[in-house]
Amino acid sequence: MAQPLVGIIVGSTSDLEVMAACEQQLAELNVPSERIVASAHRRPDVVHEWAQSAASRGLKVIIAAAGKAAHLAGVVAAYTALPVIAVPMRTNDLGGLDSLLSMVQMPTGVPVATVAINGAKNAAILATQILGVGDERFYTKAVELKQRLAED
Amino acid sequence: MAQPLVGIIVGSTSDLEVMAACEQQLAELNVPSERIVASAHRRPDVVHEWAQSAASRGLKVIIAAAGKAAHLAGVVAAYTALPVIAVPMRTNDLGGLDSLLSMVQMPTGVPVATVAINGAKNAAILATQILGVGDERFYTKAVELKQRLAED
Amino acid sequence: MAQPLVGIIVGSTSDLEVMAACEQQLAELNVPSERIVASAHRRPDVVHEWAQSAASRGLKVIIAAAGKAAHLAGVVAAYTALPVIAVPMRTNDLGGLDSLLSMVQMPTGVPVATVAINGAKNAAILATQILGVGDERFYTKAVELKQRLAED
Amino acid sequence: MAQPLVGIIVGSTSDLEVMAACEQQLAELNVPSERIVASAHRRPDVVHEWAQSAASRGLKVIIAAAGKAAHLAGVVAAYTALPVIAVPMRTNDLGGLDSLLSMVQMPTGVPVATVAINGAKNAAILATQILGVGDERFYTKAVELKQRLAED
Amino acid sequence: MAQPLVGIIVGSTSDLEVMAACEQQLAELNVPSERIVASAHRRPDVVHEWAQSAASRGLKVIIAAAGKAAHLAGVVAAYTALPVIAVPMRTNDLGGLDSLLSMVQMPTGVPVATVAINGAKNAAILATQILGVGDERFYTKAVELKQRLAED
Amino acid sequence: MAQPLVGIIVGSTSDLEVMAACEQQLAELNVPSERIVASAHRRPDVVHEWAQSAASRGLKVIIAAAGKAAHLAGVVAAYTALPVIAVPMRTNDLGGLDSLLSMVQMPTGVPVATVAINGAKNAAILATQILGVGDERFYTKAVELKQRLAED
Amino acid sequence: MAQPLVGIIVGSTSDLEVMAACEQQLAELNVPSERIVASAHRRPDVVHEWAQSAASRGLKVIIAAAGKAAHLAGVVAAYTALPVIAVPMRTNDLGGLDSLLSMVQMPTGVPVATVAINGAKNAAILATQILGVGDERFYTKAVELKQRLAED
Amino acid sequence: MAQPLVGIIVGSTSDLEVMAACEQQLAELNVPSERIVASAHRRPDVVHEWAQSAASRGLKVIIAAAGKAAHLAGVVAAYTALPVIAVPMRTNDLGGLDSLLSMVQMPTGVPVATVAINGAKNAAILATQILGVGDERFYTKAVELKQRLAED
Repeated sequence: MAQPLVGIIVGSTSDLEVMAACEQQLAELNVPSERIVASAHRRPDVVHEWAQSAASRGLKVIIAAAGKAAHLAGVVAAYTALPVIAVPMRTNDLGGLDSLLSMVQMPTGVPVATVAINGAKNAAILATQILGVGDERFYTKAVELKQRLAED
Repeated sequence: MAQPLVGIIVGSTSDLEVMAACEQQLAELNVPSERIVASAHRRPDVVHEWAQSAASRGLKVIIAAAGKAAHLAGVVAAYTALPVIAVPMRTNDLGGLDSLLSMVQMPTGVPVATVAINGAKNAAILATQILGVGDERFYTKAVELKQRLAED
Repeated sequence: MAQPLVGIIVGSTSDLEVMAACEQQLAELNVPSERIVASAHRRPDVVHEWAQSAASRGLKVIIAAAGKAAHLAGVVAAYTALPVIAVPMRTNDLGGLDSLLSMVQMPTGVPVATVAINGAKNAAILATQILGVGDERFYTKAVELKQRLAED
Repeated sequence: MAQPLVGIIVGSTSDLEVMAACEQQLAELNVPSERIVASAHRRPDVVHEWAQSAASRGLKVIIAAAGKAAHLAGVVAAYTALPVIAVPMRTNDLGGLDSLLSMVQMPTGVPVATVAINGAKNAAILATQILGVGDERFYTKAVELKQRLAED
Repeated sequence: MAQPLVGIIVGSTSDLEVMAACEQQLAELNVPSERIVASAHRRPDVVHEWAQSAASRGLKVIIAAAGKAAHLAGVVAAYTALPVIAVPMRTNDLGGLDSLLSMVQMPTGVPVATVAINGAKNAAILATQILGVGDERFYTKAVELKQRLAED
Repeated sequence: MAQPLVGIIVGSTSDLEVMAACEQQLAELNVPSERIVASAHRRPDVVHEWAQSAASRGLKVIIAAAGKAAHLAGVVAAYTALPVIAVPMRTNDLGGLDSLLSMVQMPTGVPVATVAINGAKNAAILATQILGVGDERFYTKAVELKQRLAED
Repeated sequence: MAQPLVGIIVGSTSDLEVMAACEQQLAELNVPSERIVASAHRRPDVVHEWAQSAASRGLKVIIAAAGKAAHLAGVVAAYTALPVIAVPMRTNDLGGLDSLLSMVQMPTGVPVATVAINGAKNAAILATQILGVGDERFYTKAVELKQRLAED
Repeated sequence: MAQPLVGIIVGSTSDLEVMAACEQQLAELNVPSERIVASAHRRPDVVHEWAQSAASRGLKVIIAAAGKAAHLAGVVAAYTALPVIAVPMRTNDLGGLDSLLSMVQMPTGVPVATVAINGAKNAAILATQILGVGDERFYTKAVELKQRLAED
């Protein structure tokens, strides 16, 4: 099996249903990925360890999905210099505005790359585009996907 | 000097001006406190260490102030079972709605006790009320403050 | 039966379904509690009397749950120096943003400790953490719960 | 001096500057009024007593102004069957959305009549219209004011 | 049949289901009312005529219910010096925030008395309180209702 | 002087400063216009008369600017079948979100064409584009303006 | 078949259900229209070409419907000097506030005429009113529709 | 001079002041960049051409900054498979909520990587992290910056 290049971390098993579209899109694009479920608040040491070792384990891009006071992407970004993509989860009360603001409004010095609320598939495409910066094959994948979407 | 009972942690030196009212109120109530400036995103290990050792160092209550995607209180709460009071900082663009939602909407299992946007003084009073649960002297302080406020 | 240490007050019987998770969590943690349903607007005298006598009746922490223009926590906090935890109820029209702002934005002098919209379980955990400030057994309970959550 | 018919209650002296337009408008319309500064949270007993005795003291309409988690109008309405007009104060962080929702979203059974954020003058006009329901002179005042506004 | 004292105007037949609670509450309080369905935008002349003649037809209070860009209460208030109560209807997209702001934020000179989103019953109670300013029987009705609500 | 084709109506003299950019842009495009200041709430009959006679007076497009509970565009649209452009005014408390929602969320049957908050200049350009539907000279003006903007 | 005068462009086939009311209303008013489904993001060249040729193909008014970060109307308006009506689609998470702000807040120089969230029918009526500026028959249609709506 | 790897595009010269922090941060990190000012609405063909040729001109990452109905990042992303970072500009009326939602809520298939409102410096850091995926030197730069920020 190929070395995972994208590491997906989700804050709760309840986010997996939405994030399945992310994994499926990565698989379609032949981007090897790994996935972990770990809450930034309930398992901070797991998140810390996973994020800090991500680069040395060969990951190139992180995708973090969480809802409500969604700190996961920011916490991961605190421990790695890899690009971190944030997927804010829709919430039942505020529609995901809470998740979105908790992710996108990162303070100076520690950015995360936020996509739309429940934007699981776009996170996968963005990860592929980012991989494409260093590997022509992934850039080609991203270009081909763009063409397929245009033809649909 | 007395053993600090309240630990104040702020995400940025720019939050100190607002939080001065918190320290002043604690001092008026004779509540010994300590203060640290440490960003959850730029100094995660410092925050981790400080939070994890807080109880063993004798702290009883934490007050965490931060702005924007304000993860500080949640990150601290992830590492301690002490009660954590969150003070969302006013922001120039969204008025502090981002800070507020990033703090108050904590997922199940890891609560923080959020006060009003820029509610520095109220954080101090709440901390004193919480100390009062275990120490009659602080309960008396909180009662007296309530009376003084009523008389003003 | 044990002396109740946490007093739960809800504004309406319609809030009881959500707040059942709070009572259940307290029971699991062996925190003795009492509960009353009383609207700040329809039964102000009951709320007044209940809040003012809370400390002398042995309560140590209050949890107040209400929706819409949710004044209950603030009204209770006006009559007691005990710490008051506020649980904003989700609403059908504004998702609970009204309940949240009505609770968290308390003016200087009278704080309440606000948790997430419908954050019933977190209110129970926060109450236990606060009790832990004065009673090692509850601190231990809070630490153990944190470990259990991490292991799940 | 005439028996006051409108009772104005403001939560803080900081609200008086905005509410001066209310008093001035009432004076121009020859509506006798009284004014008290009393916080629902810092002086609940004063508010309680003032509201409960309002009708017996001859007041016919209440105007309550407050900001942030603005409970004052609702608390007054809990203690009187007189009509209560609510004036949400503009706030520095959320622009008064917090004050507005805290006032207008009253639960079933205890209405308040909310006017615009900082709508001090409109509160005076609405109070006069309400007095006009029982006293032709005030109805005439309201009609004349409407004509003057149209002519300006 | 008694002279109607409260005139209810709704912007659309789709608002009648919510507003049934208003008519029912008025009936329970023995407050005679009349009702009309007329859009401020589709039937402006009907609204104009109805509002302008309201006082001379013996109405004392108006209740206007509408949704979205809810101008009905303001348009009615433009044509009468009677007190106008506004009921913002819940909307499917913005939850009624649009209706609420369109009603409550009236410019200086022409107030409306806004109640909660979908606050049909509270509009009836407020109307009764306003009638009570001029007629002791309605004040007594409002007092009794307050007592019944407290006893429930 | 040319027959006015665009009628500008503003709700308050305080809106004139912002709307000067609209008049200036129309003048630059040689679109003859007239302007009136009339509040939908304080001068409903003037607005009614002005709107109802607009088409017969030769106007082709209306621009209505107002703030807060901004009913002006909707009220005008109720009385004319001409296209009505709405300019929501920025407000000090809610930034113009109130004006925007009060204008754009018009119920089915009576549209208004809403531009950005304080979008005075864009209202003028849109009016010119609309005139261009019936008069090639204005279409040409709109095309030339687009080219000039591109060259700036 | 008649020369289409109104061009409808929708960003996604998922928008067609809501926009059917627009096409139906245009058909009832005998306004010939054409329709295309083309995403501003997935098929930018198609949108570009369609918009740039719209005027020369005889179209007089454009209606663009899209959701979320709804750029379609603005992108079309960038390529044509015809009036562009924007219909923001309701969204599952933010209710359409995202679509609305993405459409209505256009920068100076390139206006779009925004109607209500999901305001498909109103877009058709506004298009007819705009056509009426240049063709008396459509003005008459708009007047007759206004009368029918008043009679319903 | 080095081949630019990051292309910065801003919608208006008024955005340059905020974006200066982005260029400065890139310069400090020795990341060669180019900059263009081009509105998606006023110069669509320039934006189209610039975006479509970006990859072939050697650019690896795009940073797009715009305000209000901020379509620039989405429009660029429509024409390139390079990763596009979006910087929503703060606005005077809605604080940048409009810019943020217009950027982040991109539909499926065409992601943009959104950073905080006015997050110019974070855009530069994120761009460097993304370059680091393909070039160890930039990864090292990102790691060193993280260390410097921690030491400040």
